[in-house]
Amino acid sequence: MTQKRIEQQVGFILEVDKLKEVFRQTLCAQSRRPENDAEHSWHLCLAAIVLAEHANEPRLDLLRVLKMLIIHDLVEIDAGDTFAYDTARMAQQHEREARAADRIFGMLPGGQSAEFRALWDEFEDRRTPESVFAAAIDRFQPVLLNCNTDGAAWRRHKVSEDRVVARNAPIAAGSAALWMEASRMIAKAFESGRTGPAHRAADGPAGGVSLSP
Amino acid sequence: MTQKRIEQQVGFILEVDKLKEVFRQTLCAQSRRPENDAEHSWHLCLAAIVLAEHANEPRLDLLRVLKMLIIHDLVEIDAGDTFAYDTARMAQQHEREARAADRIFGMLPGGQSAEFRALWDEFEDRRTPESVFAAAIDRFQPVLLNCNTDGAAWRRHKVSEDRVVARNAPIAAGSAALWMEASRMIAKAFESGRTGPAHRAADGPAGGVSLSP
Repeated sequence: MTQKRIEQQVGFILEVDKLKEVFRQTLCAQSRRPENDAEHSWHLCLAAIVLAEHANEPRLDLLRVLKMLIIHDLVEIDAGDTFAYDTARMAQQHEREARAADRIFGMLPGGQSAEFRALWDEFEDRRTPESVFAAAIDRFQPVLLNCNTDGAAWRRHKVSEDRVVARNAPIAAGSAALWMEASRMIAKAFESGRTGPAHRAADGPAGGVSLSP
Repeated sequence: MTQKRIEQQVGFILEVDKLKEVFRQTLCAQSRRPENDAEHSWHLCLAAIVLAEHANEPRLDLLRVLKMLIIHDLVEIDAGDTFAYDTARMAQQHEREARAADRIFGMLPGGQSAEFRALWDEFEDRRTPESVFAAAIDRFQPVLLNCNTDGAAWRRHKVSEDRVVARNAPIAAGSAALWMEASRMIAKAFESGRTGPAHRAADGPAGGVSLSP
């Protein structure tokens, strides 16, 4: 009984090793190679334990925040990474990801499968202080990396400063202090000019380009 | 006051992005490229939340387990990864890593710096149920990847089956059920012959080779 259950769990742990092969638009600050979802998820966990004291909600259940951050991107094993500024592709994102969640969390044994699915649903719904804070961290970390790689992902996809601000303003719902810091960082990055003039709303049509056909 | 503190914390979060560039001997199961410390740390967190029910200690503080797993390898940013079977290099490992801990955790603001250092010390000392379980997960995950990459890291460094068993038997101190599963996996991997005859203790001098000059 325990053996069968543990074998099923180990099968799941091996399956999700694939998260290391899902690459994002954001670059690592040091090597400037694309970051993958596994190391991104780790970096979010690290940021969450460092920054939890700045959450708007003082009685945050940090364990549930971490569980959500650990599993939030597993669906991308099947559904792929959707760039946050790709409006066309984001429209069908939830449907693709919900199918992926059925398959991937369905690999876990009874009880645990439902528990992990509920954590993922909670993260997606953003209705609890824990999921709102987890989502804030999930937005803050790419801002940090972009601001330290000359806005690489923003520049590549011609995302304007106003779209970066609009996309990331919900950080404030999880942590007002963190959003103050993020908006300072964004302003400084665009002021430096290294992110390129194409980023500035004043330089072209608002909204940047969609990546999908 | 909050701004200065948050800037210091964000500086730390950016600094430890370097963990994504520290590569290990273990290969990822899918692409068979070397795994890095950041994605390894994520994979341990994932394994810990899936397998916590098998811990010998039923009242485990899982939040502290996760915090330890998130930060346990940060010292390798300065000290590099030490292969678990490299006995010569392991002898000076703790001294190198303690210096790294001084610098890296020292980047955090007052209070938090001491808290993170205490978590790392707890992990290293293996004297609490949480650190013993975290260490069990840290041994189990490379076994899982090695068993699913034809024993790549073991074969490359001619590590025999008896050394693999000896190195990983302490998993039992954190979870007897997990060690039963790991020892089944190790036996099966060596029986398959794909890990190569050089791995078997009977085929050569015991102990494998040291990697250091």
